[in-house]
Amino acid sequence: MSEFKEPIFDLAQLAHVELLSPKPEESVEFFTRFLGMNITAREGQSVYLKAYEDTYQNTLKITESSDAGLGHVAWRAISPQALERRVEAVKATGLGKGWIEGDIGHGAAYQFTTPDGHPMELLFDVDYYQPKVEEKTRLLNRNVKRPDRGVPVRRLDHINLMTADTAKNTDFLIDTLGFRLREQIQDNGNVLGSWVSVSNLVHEIAFMQEPNRIPGKLHHLCYWYGIPQNLYDIADLLKDNDIFIEVPPNKHGISQAFCMYVHEPGGNRIELFGDAGYIITDPTWKPVIWEMKDTPGYGDTWIGTEFPESWWTQGTPVTVPAIVESK
Amino acid sequence: MSEFKEPIFDLAQLAHVELLSPKPEESVEFFTRFLGMNITAREGQSVYLKAYEDTYQNTLKITESSDAGLGHVAWRAISPQALERRVEAVKATGLGKGWIEGDIGHGAAYQFTTPDGHPMELLFDVDYYQPKVEEKTRLLNRNVKRPDRGVPVRRLDHINLMTADTAKNTDFLIDTLGFRLREQIQDNGNVLGSWVSVSNLVHEIAFMQEPNRIPGKLHHLCYWYGIPQNLYDIADLLKDNDIFIEVPPNKHGISQAFCMYVHEPGGNRIELFGDAGYIITDPTWKPVIWEMKDTPGYGDTWIGTEFPESWWTQGTPVTVPAIVESK
Amino acid sequence: MSEFKEPIFDLAQLAHVELLSPKPEESVEFFTRFLGMNITAREGQSVYLKAYEDTYQNTLKITESSDAGLGHVAWRAISPQALERRVEAVKATGLGKGWIEGDIGHGAAYQFTTPDGHPMELLFDVDYYQPKVEEKTRLLNRNVKRPDRGVPVRRLDHINLMTADTAKNTDFLIDTLGFRLREQIQDNGNVLGSWVSVSNLVHEIAFMQEPNRIPGKLHHLCYWYGIPQNLYDIADLLKDNDIFIEVPPNKHGISQAFCMYVHEPGGNRIELFGDAGYIITDPTWKPVIWEMKDTPGYGDTWIGTEFPESWWTQGTPVTVPAIVESK
Amino acid sequence: MSEFKEPIFDLAQLAHVELLSPKPEESVEFFTRFLGMNITAREGQSVYLKAYEDTYQNTLKITESSDAGLGHVAWRAISPQALERRVEAVKATGLGKGWIEGDIGHGAAYQFTTPDGHPMELLFDVDYYQPKVEEKTRLLNRNVKRPDRGVPVRRLDHINLMTADTAKNTDFLIDTLGFRLREQIQDNGNVLGSWVSVSNLVHEIAFMQEPNRIPGKLHHLCYWYGIPQNLYDIADLLKDNDIFIEVPPNKHGISQAFCMYVHEPGGNRIELFGDAGYIITDPTWKPVIWEMKDTPGYGDTWIGTEFPESWWTQGTPVTVPAIVESK
Repeated sequence: MSEFKEPIFDLAQLAHVELLSPKPEESVEFFTRFLGMNITAREGQSVYLKAYEDTYQNTLKITESSDAGLGHVAWRAISPQALERRVEAVKATGLGKGWIEGDIGHGAAYQFTTPDGHPMELLFDVDYYQPKVEEKTRLLNRNVKRPDRGVPVRRLDHINLMTADTAKNTDFLIDTLGFRLREQIQDNGNVLGSWVSVSNLVHEIAFMQEPNRIPGKLHHLCYWYGIPQNLYDIADLLKDNDIFIEVPPNKHGISQAFCMYVHEPGGNRIELFGDAGYIITDPTWKPVIWEMKDTPGYGDTWIGTEFPESWWTQGTPVTVPAIVESK
Repeated sequence: MSEFKEPIFDLAQLAHVELLSPKPEESVEFFTRFLGMNITAREGQSVYLKAYEDTYQNTLKITESSDAGLGHVAWRAISPQALERRVEAVKATGLGKGWIEGDIGHGAAYQFTTPDGHPMELLFDVDYYQPKVEEKTRLLNRNVKRPDRGVPVRRLDHINLMTADTAKNTDFLIDTLGFRLREQIQDNGNVLGSWVSVSNLVHEIAFMQEPNRIPGKLHHLCYWYGIPQNLYDIADLLKDNDIFIEVPPNKHGISQAFCMYVHEPGGNRIELFGDAGYIITDPTWKPVIWEMKDTPGYGDTWIGTEFPESWWTQGTPVTVPAIVESK
Repeated sequence: MSEFKEPIFDLAQLAHVELLSPKPEESVEFFTRFLGMNITAREGQSVYLKAYEDTYQNTLKITESSDAGLGHVAWRAISPQALERRVEAVKATGLGKGWIEGDIGHGAAYQFTTPDGHPMELLFDVDYYQPKVEEKTRLLNRNVKRPDRGVPVRRLDHINLMTADTAKNTDFLIDTLGFRLREQIQDNGNVLGSWVSVSNLVHEIAFMQEPNRIPGKLHHLCYWYGIPQNLYDIADLLKDNDIFIEVPPNKHGISQAFCMYVHEPGGNRIELFGDAGYIITDPTWKPVIWEMKDTPGYGDTWIGTEFPESWWTQGTPVTVPAIVESK
Repeated sequence: MSEFKEPIFDLAQLAHVELLSPKPEESVEFFTRFLGMNITAREGQSVYLKAYEDTYQNTLKITESSDAGLGHVAWRAISPQALERRVEAVKATGLGKGWIEGDIGHGAAYQFTTPDGHPMELLFDVDYYQPKVEEKTRLLNRNVKRPDRGVPVRRLDHINLMTADTAKNTDFLIDTLGFRLREQIQDNGNVLGSWVSVSNLVHEIAFMQEPNRIPGKLHHLCYWYGIPQNLYDIADLLKDNDIFIEVPPNKHGISQAFCMYVHEPGGNRIELFGDAGYIITDPTWKPVIWEMKDTPGYGDTWIGTEFPESWWTQGTPVTVPAIVESK
């Protein structure tokens, strides 16, 4: 029994995400007017926001940029010691970039990239959002009162990145950061998609193969409702306001989450989660492997219509300066 | 920073629960006909069952007994090493009882009790349920096809126990087993209820103060749907079949879960969960403290009607041989 | 067969309702900020509003008054001829008051009262709301875009009035106006509540016995969502903003509608409908008779908790100048 | 004003439908095991069924046949006199076929066809289903207890027929039977689809243009849940049992109903309604006209994915002996 390898529990959660937008004010309006998020800070070309049950100062930073895409992804460690352990592990891979002093909402953070080049950071020190008097609620496990705008999302859920090499990037998360593989799409042994997590969620992050092996793209960012009907309410509101709904509400096979996909005005794909899907508390969970040929109509959407081609192929930025050749 | 105490991650989950029932066949009919659970084994005076997304051989054992109440609660460790660590910790408290070879669905288990006397066990080796050919589903993260009976529950969620001393029993879970305190009801510093977990759930177990300080009672066992509307569907079906609904569907303040409470024919209170409530991935989560005076109408049910007196005071067995004096 | 009495089809629908409020601006804020209704006109001490799928210029008129209560109820006839027929029938009862030229949103209307004294009017000419350019929607059967405020109600549903003599007032609606009896609460032959309609709905109007036989009170006004989950969303928002929830979401036995009751800041009880209940298209429908002794826990709320005493006894205005003796 | 034409109120409802099935026992299993319907009679090659809130002896007759398709559609009049009036009107069109003595569940009925040849009948005398003792429920407006099988539908909703000439068949319903036009799809003045009703529903019957002008086909039959989430529950169950889901749950633009389409094992398309859509009580309702070019993605499914080609083109029987030439 002594050879059973114990898991690494050093990372706790997805802490925040930075999105790039060529239309920042319209992007901010999308998240505040329709998704009911609150602006908690503005600085330089960036706006900071949170959902009403997010407890930190912010979970989303929108930064003006010439193209849509990912700014960076931040992971919170379970302790200062755990942060130090993971920083050392990252340094050993050669992908580390160094410490920054912090940003609005958090202290010192260690910057690095995935093998694909997606900017990420590790941190432990965070600032909790302090509600104003009029925002305080008697529901003590809720950060601020439920907003009266749009159909308000409750918290940040996960990120999905496109990559030139899904297998390699998945391994990096598992080996270096302690993520666990939960579900995977394979095509005759080639890894086309991976859903991995550090928590009991099926994923805080997924990687999907970029069909032209262009690295570094964002596939989507997801906020969570936890209530399936809320997807129909927000879809009705968004449709009535000419926001593009790429995939209407449906149940994913992979993760079983009740999902929908829309495009925010800046061009980034946003997923909304209407229920919890399933959770994984089994410590000897065997990853679920979907063969690509069985995935459409089962793994993507369990009920009915397959995902459109665009979902499988497009991320942001839509165009990139150069195409990286794969081996 | 070096003094930051890192959490214990040795226990992974609530693995199964044994319920005692004076009307075992009626209890089994309740769980199979209405909650759509499947019988996976029968042995002696016991019937073993699982929900359709439970992956183990069973999560519920119903054993015939003169009185309703708790048989035992089983926790699964993350590894053989972690199991050994926790067994040692339990032994040190003097509450250990010793190893058993196993039961249907699992291997060696270490038995002990809470300070209150609730029978529990720790284990690592489990048997996964092997679906029959006709039960297999193309939804690969689901153990068997969705049942066509009743309104089928998806998985075991949590247990709630009444205790003669909530503070002491809570401390035992935290100090000896590595649970983390998530929410608590206090009355001028006296602990009346605790919600604790080893996972990202708000709780796998709660303790509530038994008003007469009678130890060892079961308050309720909970299975999970994840879909709020399902509570109305099962409530409609149960009401039409004369099953007592003690608390109709409502949103808990504590945990934010969408809940309802019914009494199974054997007399035990069963909770059904219609959504996920919130989850906790924050590694520095500060427990939410509810003052008892603020709890009714906010902490119990967030929306509207307070819980009935029976919910606060009654567990199973309803009567006990002797009342233990508290100090 | 020639003796089969054919029904009267002269009235089509509940057209609008006037509420009295001692706190008109707070009442208007309740309907606009939380229920997402739009203000379509203001005149004198009155504000006119509509829900986003109401097609007429308004369905609600809120008028400042020293006490909460009913202003008036307006019924639309199916044709000018039908209007004339019903006016003649009302005149024959001695309860007619005469024609008015109209109000914002409608033309000539004939005023009368129920035997209990509730002000009502009959009309045919109505003004349809003309959406502004920015309000227009591609959902052609929707009057304006779905609002982005609160949890927006879709249309006016029904009115419930308290009365000193339920049987007499019910008979007036049936005999004079052509309503059909759908469900009724009786206590040893005494009529305590009646649900009647001119359409396929179970009711556009209900009468309930005022326990002290005080005439003329309003029990509640109801707007409709058609989506059960929306009741939980609005309840969450209202609770977080200190609006009193008298009855949390539950399924009525009578009508089977998914309902909840709140008090708007002016003091009037407002019901919100989360689903359709059932509809009646059977032309030989036999009224459903509930015995009062069987009603609590079955007829009021089908699932679980009985209605509170206040629901059975209180209407607006809460106090009245004089008590009318009934025989 | 005297020229205002008053509507005809002679027909009350869709009473029942006969489906033809080449696999009658599998069709019956679909309706009983998955949709929770009850068998109320068997005779010859036919099985009679009802949903649990249908009050008549049956609303569905499944008859063995070489091909899938429509057996007949039955309409109930509001009175014996109204029945006589409509029979006379049908006779005047030359489409009448004559009286039959009755069938299981109803008395004398007058048979006729639409101009397209769809078999229909008019009737007044019906038998109400008499629940067995163990079926009786305390929910007095429900015919029998909620079934514990599948995800049970509540009542018959509507029928949709394909036709070689939508305009002509729509006019027949309006002029001869008193239906009212509610919504319509036009293509430069050509009528491609009509939704008409005798009640406050948007439709009890719709006609859609058969692209090859083949007359007499069935497009679909619809049963009603009234609860949006139920569509996801039944879709999950049906998918797990290999029933073809042609259109996953979505919100129709036309009628606003929350719908889904599946194919029963006999080959007929079955729609399931998850909410009420909107209702029409306005007596001067102006039909909503959708231009065909604007319909996909707005009129068919309001939220997201357009209907598949099959939905627009295929009915049952899939093949017919001869193709009728259109002018």
